[in-house]
Amino acid sequence: MAKACILIADGTEEMEFTITYDTLVRAGVSCASAYVPSGADNDASFTSPPFARGSRGINILPDMFFSPQDCTPDKFDLLVIPGGAKGAETISTSSPVQHLVRRFLDEGKFVGMICAGSLAAKTSGLAKQPITSHPSVKSELEKNFDYREDPVVVSGKLVTSRGPGTTFPFALTLVELLCGAEKRKDVAGPMVFPPNTFA
Amino acid sequence: MAKACILIADGTEEMEFTITYDTLVRAGVSCASAYVPSGADNDASFTSPPFARGSRGINILPDMFFSPQDCTPDKFDLLVIPGGAKGAETISTSSPVQHLVRRFLDEGKFVGMICAGSLAAKTSGLAKQPITSHPSVKSELEKNFDYREDPVVVSGKLVTSRGPGTTFPFALTLVELLCGAEKRKDVAGPMVFPPNTFA
Repeated sequence: MAKACILIADGTEEMEFTITYDTLVRAGVSCASAYVPSGADNDASFTSPPFARGSRGINILPDMFFSPQDCTPDKFDLLVIPGGAKGAETISTSSPVQHLVRRFLDEGKFVGMICAGSLAAKTSGLAKQPITSHPSVKSELEKNFDYREDPVVVSGKLVTSRGPGTTFPFALTLVELLCGAEKRKDVAGPMVFPPNTFA
Repeated sequence: MAKACILIADGTEEMEFTITYDTLVRAGVSCASAYVPSGADNDASFTSPPFARGSRGINILPDMFFSPQDCTPDKFDLLVIPGGAKGAETISTSSPVQHLVRRFLDEGKFVGMICAGSLAAKTSGLAKQPITSHPSVKSELEKNFDYREDPVVVSGKLVTSRGPGTTFPFALTLVELLCGAEKRKDVAGPMVFPPNTFA
């Protein structure tokens, strides 16, 4: 069974987080959400992950704390970085996260980034390659990457996407890459997409 | 400012909940999620709402407990019932919820139901009218209602929809009804829908 580690922080875009997690679970992928504390929280000592306050005020309880020891590519097949300006900033500026992004790709595992989450491609120092993101952070990425405006861009094992409105095709692309085209169809059917959209 | 009360229970479909809540917040609608305990929980006494365990394992902290006194149509312009088989069963079989559904519609306020949440139209004893739902509960609704298979069905103040894949058009329709067509466009733009889908 494929396993995914989905990062979450205060300010994460809750639709991008939830659609990705839920769609992967529907495909039989085992998902764990890992809470990345902001700089201000780093000094605190928690016994369990606090809830993450989403970008539009939905409070989500993460499954675990992010830890560079527990979120490694030998334990997971996919690392996902959702958007939401504040959440993506916290996650993309974390040097342990940046290190893990490189390790996942070096070891042939998948990394997904969506919306402002794509900033992590730059902060992790990834090589110039095709990428997309939310239009609001395009200017921060277009010099370092071959910037595209497709809903989903697959570049080797790096999968990037644009915003809440592209999260379904992003999640379904991850399902297809991890579990095959047949599973993508099995998962999309019961989700009842309107005709001529994503089904 | 328009206000929405969005019900949630253990087993609620977390995408349907999150997309609706988040999209309404983006339109400036003040949202409160209200936790409906299952029968087993009714005897317990809580001091704060417990988290709701979503249908695919995402744990969400509701904003408040559901109470027939606090979720009334004088306080909210819209009542939303999301799907997820177990969550929709808990919500649609709650007689205080059924009473409120009728009050909202009687007092000219909006009620939204999506996926298995549409079962609440039947349990609340609503008059025969156009309705849709997740295909899995169609057989329970088609005798009592004028059943449709459109992504979103608007019947007076009752708005119904089909599943996770139709939640964006469901939420954007609610935005349009509460805040106007211009606001719907303002909200959809930054969500970056793929061309020819919902934008």
